[in-house]
Amino acid sequence: MSIANDNRAYAALNERFATASKLSAARYLLFWDSQTYMPKGAAWSRGEQLAALEATCTDLVAAPDAQELFGHAGEALDALSPIERANLTEMRRVWGHQAAAPKELLVEKARLCATLQGDWLAAKKSNDFALFAKGFEQMMPLHREIAAAKAEALGLAPYDALMDEVDPGLSTALVDPIFDDLEKVLPDLLAEVIERQASWPDPVPFTGDFSPERQRALSYKLLEAVGHSLENCRIDAAPHPFALAGSPGDNRFTTRFDEDNIRFAIMATLHEAGHALYEANLPRELAFTPVGAARGATAHESQSIMVEMQAGRSRELLSWLAPQLHAAFGGDAGSWSLDNVLNTYRRVGAGYIRVEADEISYPLHIILRYRIERALLSGDLAVADLPGAWSEMSQALFGRRPPDHARGCLQDIHWAMGMFGYFPNYALGETFAAQLFERATADDPDIRPGLARGDFGPYRAWVAPRIHHRASQVPFATLVEEATGAPLSADALKRHLRRRYLEEAAPL
Amino acid sequence: MSIANDNRAYAALNERFATASKLSAARYLLFWDSQTYMPKGAAWSRGEQLAALEATCTDLVAAPDAQELFGHAGEALDALSPIERANLTEMRRVWGHQAAAPKELLVEKARLCATLQGDWLAAKKSNDFALFAKGFEQMMPLHREIAAAKAEALGLAPYDALMDEVDPGLSTALVDPIFDDLEKVLPDLLAEVIERQASWPDPVPFTGDFSPERQRALSYKLLEAVGHSLENCRIDAAPHPFALAGSPGDNRFTTRFDEDNIRFAIMATLHEAGHALYEANLPRELAFTPVGAARGATAHESQSIMVEMQAGRSRELLSWLAPQLHAAFGGDAGSWSLDNVLNTYRRVGAGYIRVEADEISYPLHIILRYRIERALLSGDLAVADLPGAWSEMSQALFGRRPPDHARGCLQDIHWAMGMFGYFPNYALGETFAAQLFERATADDPDIRPGLARGDFGPYRAWVAPRIHHRASQVPFATLVEEATGAPLSADALKRHLRRRYLEEAAPL
Repeated sequence: MSIANDNRAYAALNERFATASKLSAARYLLFWDSQTYMPKGAAWSRGEQLAALEATCTDLVAAPDAQELFGHAGEALDALSPIERANLTEMRRVWGHQAAAPKELLVEKARLCATLQGDWLAAKKSNDFALFAKGFEQMMPLHREIAAAKAEALGLAPYDALMDEVDPGLSTALVDPIFDDLEKVLPDLLAEVIERQASWPDPVPFTGDFSPERQRALSYKLLEAVGHSLENCRIDAAPHPFALAGSPGDNRFTTRFDEDNIRFAIMATLHEAGHALYEANLPRELAFTPVGAARGATAHESQSIMVEMQAGRSRELLSWLAPQLHAAFGGDAGSWSLDNVLNTYRRVGAGYIRVEADEISYPLHIILRYRIERALLSGDLAVADLPGAWSEMSQALFGRRPPDHARGCLQDIHWAMGMFGYFPNYALGETFAAQLFERATADDPDIRPGLARGDFGPYRAWVAPRIHHRASQVPFATLVEEATGAPLSADALKRHLRRRYLEEAAPL
Repeated sequence: MSIANDNRAYAALNERFATASKLSAARYLLFWDSQTYMPKGAAWSRGEQLAALEATCTDLVAAPDAQELFGHAGEALDALSPIERANLTEMRRVWGHQAAAPKELLVEKARLCATLQGDWLAAKKSNDFALFAKGFEQMMPLHREIAAAKAEALGLAPYDALMDEVDPGLSTALVDPIFDDLEKVLPDLLAEVIERQASWPDPVPFTGDFSPERQRALSYKLLEAVGHSLENCRIDAAPHPFALAGSPGDNRFTTRFDEDNIRFAIMATLHEAGHALYEANLPRELAFTPVGAARGATAHESQSIMVEMQAGRSRELLSWLAPQLHAAFGGDAGSWSLDNVLNTYRRVGAGYIRVEADEISYPLHIILRYRIERALLSGDLAVADLPGAWSEMSQALFGRRPPDHARGCLQDIHWAMGMFGYFPNYALGETFAAQLFERATADDPDIRPGLARGDFGPYRAWVAPRIHHRASQVPFATLVEEATGAPLSADALKRHLRRRYLEEAAPL
């Protein structure tokens, strides 16, 4: 982006945010390394480095003169191109969040997080909720104070203020009708599909050599099918799959080469390849600017879910994937028949774990967390009552209660990491993905046949200009409407789930 | 280190330098990644991130109020512990270098470096010196201006000012007598040794399976023998061997699994393990402070050379290593006999390449560069005359002229990377290593028998408290004198080379 000579305040802000973006990219790489190759004994020192990078970014973005610079920059808008104006808006948004929360609260929160993660792990292992509750009870007032400060500064409701940071433009006003709708429809749909699937043959377990080497080779095949090249992408093993973000030209991601859960490992690779594709297609000329970053957590999740769920569990892609899996792993041909692969990936309703949930159950897992987060933040729910509330809602949504905390309220790391207001994007991403994919396949009838050839080319040709290339140039709501012709709603997802799970032919 | 409440200026500086140290550690990790796992297409973006980290460090260290803070901190020395006083001295030194060079010169230099590295590579490949000379001619005035600015600010001669940045306390006054001494003695010694070795049997080439997997396994064995654990160390393949520095708890290094030069690959691992051992033994309580960092380039190089050359080519270590190599690579037992391994690693005088040179030739390679650098900086030598000067000096020192630039003045990347005044430490490190090892083995007669068992324990027990644990708590000259009882000189190295190459028994 050219420097606007006639708006020096903008130029100064732009330079500062570019530096902050580069330091953030460095921070993400250090995190990646900590999950892949870092010697374990360096954890404390790496923590210091990550904290220093975070503090330096905050100091850059929320410098004492920032407010004044934003004032001046706003007075000379004529000197800015449309894209520079959009960048100014994004910089102001990032600054608004950074400046709103008192620094001492953030420091206190970071300190608590460091111990809470250990508590969470121990509590989960020993099924001892009280072990986690102690720190979490200290954390909640901090969330409330931070949310209140942001709410005041940004003119938003407290929960909205938290959600807005990772997902700009999302609000409970947008989320509530969608989640209400899904909560009304999905439990019955789930029951109906479970009943339908009861008459299907039992899926045959996948067979073959699932050694990490073979999984790695398959993963690279999937990576290339989705549209990545080795010039810009690589895959490494890590305890939790994630994709690097914010490093233009570097679209690496991690996956789990889990020999005991091959079904999940394959889909995790497709999921992360979807995230990485968004990063790969962000406009290079906007590198390291807030306007050039991905549009937010929901938009990002829509891109991973589209690849993993919409495309990844489509009959077309699975018909290409099934023989690939057989070739990659060997084993019994019967276990790799299209019917058995379909039967395996389409099964719904089992388990208690969010990250392994099927497409119908998944939004319900999120709705449960969303309702609990809001109640915790408002104070309507005490931390001590969390397991009971979780159990009740599980009964209501899934018709069963988790047998222990590890499969209940302690299954996710998010709260122990200090993330609050983050969960909604997982379900909204699924919702948006359905809306996008429905429109994409209607617009271009070659997308599905492409998938059947293992060719995501037509898919990418539709989605890249409508989502990836647009980065943060327009608000989320505009992005949704311009790409799909309608505001975000649960309609497309409901249609998709009925079509795929009640109308498509059953596996033989 | 505790914060000195009664010296707020010190506390402010200490916090700032700690952040800078952490950002530097992050920068080094990003460099490590760029040499190991980074997808190639991310080079430009990684360059941006590295530059942002460097600029942020400079801004932190050379902030406008730094001079004032140093003034205040110096007025309340009584409030500081001895170690805090030493830290203040180190911070002032780092700041002195950062603040002395005009920022625009450094930016200009960084820009030139970016293109000069490409020119250098192309020039080296095509044996076309003019291709490199064009950019290097633009670089030299920058070196001169930066050296002059630092000389003025620090009260040093220009070349001394450059050398002092990476190697605090070194000066031409210290270096000249040592290099003069070596230049007088080594060419004759080299000729004498070559004559002696002429009657030895030809070394039998090493045989076996030198696949990267086997080399990796051996490297990890060497890593553990030197004294590292997997808790804090790892080895990765990279085009150039180097050890991470400045990341407490993370002592990883890289090596080259070169199947065509197994002799070199083995010693590169020992060399880097020596560097990493220094980093591993720096005092944890001084992590991320200037006083807690390694003492400088010469001290660092002494630690790698001691492991690689003093210990690594000793009869004792080789007697342990030879059967390890046979076990690791298989092949013909004769090629792995102690005599043949000794014969291989003790051979001197061949080749034109510094990094593959023997212990006797190595200092001469450095002396050549040192003389040329000084002449280039003073203007006594024009860039256009560099190849001629190189050829003349090679004739004088080695009795032969390099057949092309790749084996002559274009063999090293340093000048293309903007490093000037850096070479001396390589020979001084060898000098210091000899002085240390002579004293260590005199103090503790179990060091050599330890090496013969593949046990560096006694070696570490001597060197760690005298070098590693001291970090930058005393000046370099003090470190040398307190560890060895004498100032740095060429005497121990000369004695060592005569003993090993003229007096020790010849291989059969």
